[in-house]
Amino acid sequence: MKRTQDGSSYGHFVRLRSAGAVEAGRRGAVATLIRSIGTDSHRMPHTGNMSYSSDVTPIPIAALSNPDADQLERMAQRGQSIRVKLTLTPSYTGVVESGNVVAELPGSDLADELVVIGGHLDSWDLGTGAIDDGAGVAITMEVLRRIKEAGLKPRRTIRLVLWGSEEVGLLGGYAYADKHKDTLRNHVIGTESDFGAGRIWKITRNISEQAKPVADKIAELVEPLGIAPGCNSARSSGPDLSPMNAKGFPGFRFVQDGSDYFDLHHTPDDTLDKIDPAAMDQNVAAYLVFVWMAANSNVSDWGWPVEQ
Amino acid sequence: MKRTQDGSSYGHFVRLRSAGAVEAGRRGAVATLIRSIGTDSHRMPHTGNMSYSSDVTPIPIAALSNPDADQLERMAQRGQSIRVKLTLTPSYTGVVESGNVVAELPGSDLADELVVIGGHLDSWDLGTGAIDDGAGVAITMEVLRRIKEAGLKPRRTIRLVLWGSEEVGLLGGYAYADKHKDTLRNHVIGTESDFGAGRIWKITRNISEQAKPVADKIAELVEPLGIAPGCNSARSSGPDLSPMNAKGFPGFRFVQDGSDYFDLHHTPDDTLDKIDPAAMDQNVAAYLVFVWMAANSNVSDWGWPVEQ
Repeated sequence: MKRTQDGSSYGHFVRLRSAGAVEAGRRGAVATLIRSIGTDSHRMPHTGNMSYSSDVTPIPIAALSNPDADQLERMAQRGQSIRVKLTLTPSYTGVVESGNVVAELPGSDLADELVVIGGHLDSWDLGTGAIDDGAGVAITMEVLRRIKEAGLKPRRTIRLVLWGSEEVGLLGGYAYADKHKDTLRNHVIGTESDFGAGRIWKITRNISEQAKPVADKIAELVEPLGIAPGCNSARSSGPDLSPMNAKGFPGFRFVQDGSDYFDLHHTPDDTLDKIDPAAMDQNVAAYLVFVWMAANSNVSDWGWPVEQ
Repeated sequence: MKRTQDGSSYGHFVRLRSAGAVEAGRRGAVATLIRSIGTDSHRMPHTGNMSYSSDVTPIPIAALSNPDADQLERMAQRGQSIRVKLTLTPSYTGVVESGNVVAELPGSDLADELVVIGGHLDSWDLGTGAIDDGAGVAITMEVLRRIKEAGLKPRRTIRLVLWGSEEVGLLGGYAYADKHKDTLRNHVIGTESDFGAGRIWKITRNISEQAKPVADKIAELVEPLGIAPGCNSARSSGPDLSPMNAKGFPGFRFVQDGSDYFDLHHTPDDTLDKIDPAAMDQNVAAYLVFVWMAANSNVSDWGWPVEQ
């Protein structure tokens, strides 16, 4: 994959990993070996989610680091016969319980209406998960802490959700959407921080006409932080809110600079030393503006579809 | 250690590794655990030479990657009791034979006089040794290849030495100096390429007054390659020529930009993808100028001390 500021090439190339074992198994392969879906040049393979299909015999799948994949390519280009022995240690240890952690700053006259932010608690276990997604958890917790510390009371309830089991298939997000299915429309607007610890550089949104003035005001207030104003895009609020987006939850995201995100994401290098505190502060400032404006404006309809 | 263009902080900090086991053993330690003497932020420890002393009981020594050392420091700062279990797999397998590989372009009227270049063949086995010191071997071999291909015949003999066993204590360099101890003064000038594959940015030298015009001419010819003119420094021609420098061999070095050298050196990340071919070309061009000028000038005395 290629290095991009918005990390968008990951979504394209990650299918080689997520669907690779099924596609190769269907064609009679005994195993699948892919080039890491990452941008680093280290000798540690990038890992992540993959899946099997009930109609295809499961086969092993593994990733080679980029330098090792280069070496294999050079051998192939020289016409060498290549034989690879795989020693893979991962194992499936069964279903365990996870959970979403929910905290709230209760609202006043519009307390039934919710503004939702958060990050996810789980991470791939090679590193400590500092950028994926310790950063998102820290940024959004800090937003609530600062509002509370300032003694401010919002009109709407501000709900922090620290999602569980994002990495294995957005399980926390689906469970939340299912549990709250009768009150989903109480969720006015929200967004998840889940793209590392880089600075926010633009906004994307998918909202109603009547929410545009408040969204534009948010964009105006965060512009001094180096954030470009919003543009319309797909209805997206982050991975764990995507099950709600699929049901019509309006979209809002702060897009972070992910130029180095896929150097670190899902590798042993995802550790605290990669985080710049000044960039975290910029994120906190932007989320504070968003949360406070969304929780106190007169706009309750950010773009849920009209009910039939 | 700190990242510097000339890599000079390595020499200072590497004593923690090379002498750490002896110093700690003398004070009664059961093992030594150091922070990697490297500038990278990856999760792979940096390795390298260390030594024992016959008067101190040998104890194990190991390095932690920088992010892992950070974590241990944070634990210590919180006052946590820290217990570390070391599982170290290196072993001493005894003495084996190595060798220097020597090739020459024979000179004409001054064939007994030698201009020496080269790199070292061995490397730490975590990576492939592309920058330490495949690059130096490739740069200096290419210099001889180009002169030969051009059909040029030098006045002095140009000797390429690909040194063996540099990493374990300059064994090839010491063996060479010993083997040629009666004819060392035939070595007019020389230099080793052993600081990776970065661009050359300056020259250092320790030479006689009468060699300065030819050295200045070399500096003038390589200046368009972005190389700053020579300054006087210690009598140094590179690690494997240092046993000869100790006996008076005059010094000349092309100093490469090593800003990223200690991100890669002695780690699994020392692989071919880290090398920029354009920077290699710049090195080859500079060495060609040096070798050709030194092999053909009227200057045979570059600064050996006057014999007593």
